[in-house]
Amino acid sequence: LESGGRPATNVQEMCVYEINELDRNSPAYLRLSQKDVNSLGDLVPFSNKVYSGDLQKRLGITAGLCVLIQHVPERVGDRYEAIYSFYFGEYGHISVQGAYLTYEDTYLAVTGGSGVFAGVRGQVKMQQLVFPFKIFYTFYLEGIPDLPEELLCSPVPPSPEVEPTPAAKAAEPHAALNNYTN
Amino acid sequence: LESGGRPATNVQEMCVYEINELDRNSPAYLRLSQKDVNSLGDLVPFSNKVYSGDLQKRLGITAGLCVLIQHVPERVGDRYEAIYSFYFGEYGHISVQGAYLTYEDTYLAVTGGSGVFAGVRGQVKMQQLVFPFKIFYTFYLEGIPDLPEELLCSPVPPSPEVEPTPAAKAAEPHAALNNYTN
Amino acid sequence: LESGGRPATNVQEMCVYEINELDRNSPAYLRLSQKDVNSLGDLVPFSNKVYSGDLQKRLGITAGLCVLIQHVPERVGDRYEAIYSFYFGEYGHISVQGAYLTYEDTYLAVTGGSGVFAGVRGQVKMQQLVFPFKIFYTFYLEGIPDLPEELLCSPVPPSPEVEPTPAAKAAEPHAALNNYTN
Repeated sequence: LESGGRPATNVQEMCVYEINELDRNSPAYLRLSQKDVNSLGDLVPFSNKVYSGDLQKRLGITAGLCVLIQHVPERVGDRYEAIYSFYFGEYGHISVQGAYLTYEDTYLAVTGGSGVFAGVRGQVKMQQLVFPFKIFYTFYLEGIPDLPEELLCSPVPPSPEVEPTPAAKAAEPHAALNNYTN
Repeated sequence: LESGGRPATNVQEMCVYEINELDRNSPAYLRLSQKDVNSLGDLVPFSNKVYSGDLQKRLGITAGLCVLIQHVPERVGDRYEAIYSFYFGEYGHISVQGAYLTYEDTYLAVTGGSGVFAGVRGQVKMQQLVFPFKIFYTFYLEGIPDLPEELLCSPVPPSPEVEPTPAAKAAEPHAALNNYTN
Repeated sequence: LESGGRPATNVQEMCVYEINELDRNSPAYLRLSQKDVNSLGDLVPFSNKVYSGDLQKRLGITAGLCVLIQHVPERVGDRYEAIYSFYFGEYGHISVQGAYLTYEDTYLAVTGGSGVFAGVRGQVKMQQLVFPFKIFYTFYLEGIPDLPEELLCSPVPPSPEVEPTPAAKAAEPHAALNNYTN
């Protein structure tokens, strides 16, 4: 046990949805390779909305950069190196880095965080539901105190049809974090 | 207690100033969005000088990338995702990631480090004093041995008027880290 | 001791080679500074092959971004801020960030990982052997269970002449990780 009685291997799960509602001018596909097909050299800054796993609450946004690494014709998709953060209003943020494959689920590294996530380590599973608009994430977080109840929930099982509630989409006070990131 | 007798929750504070003296051709604002107003798609590589919190010593530099996420007209500013490192000569470096808001203080994640900072976790508070030229940082560092005395000091309280001493600006031997990063 | 009996300061070493075989259209030097000499503003996405330290096995790839920080004429080289990951097939990945100096060895931060590297912290030494085609890395990894035997080996001492075995270059089944990253 570490001090405080927490086992060093304690892992907390947290689920969120990332949804592109086409209202943030995202992504910005920068075709710097100047090639016709997606190629190394292309960069893709992006920022989407983040909802709780039960789709009842608007939490915040994602923000960061995808680096196109490779077009993968046999999988009809692309490999990106993704470097970005998830913002959760006054609770703070989580930074992540790893592979985003448009044709397959991946695990990214949790590289750190702020606020209630200060000092966090771990990984996050990324499941793409509708390319590139709807992604489900399961975070496996270590090294931090118990998460606030408000960030924990029983997620809606991921499927292409899921949608946030209208109240969450509208970020109504009862359906959004206090000072949710926007 | 972890082995070595250090409480797992031991947090060390370290304060530094980041100052743009306009002598490093930084920042490089890349208007890749090709829009008139700052927009997603713009990228901003940068590198500035780093001084100790008491402004008596040149420590090194910052180096990294800001990704423009959003122009925020109601705050007359911008949201960036910032991914960069602080270099401290032979002592090593600290990497950070998180939000840089031109209109508000933020906390970024400490994602790792090298040398005396190897294995570091935590967060860093960023207080902007003069946009975009003078920033005060308070690091909250976990998971590493006691920092060298030379990196610890009583900071000059942050204000827009603070300046490094002339000796620190000139990086004179008594006013700079040994082999400070430049 | 942390739970599980592992000393909190336990550090595992792992050695790999990164080799550019000129078959991945890497690096993509984006001269966004529009200057004749390498300058702040230039960005360099890249992806190379990764082999075990004994050069007997193909492990995977690197993938990420170098940000040109400074041309250093007195050292006939450049300073980059490097943000990238090492992929090891089904074992997962390690993300790193720090200085890449074309004229000197450096230590980068290990910022996190996935799979067997989930929750990892530490640093990695980068030794350039042939610019910019052959690099030897020694990882110093903390905070994770014992690494799989397959990732550990006695490295071939780094020199400009080292080459992977023909079987490893061809990624033959006995000379590559199962489902090695490509």
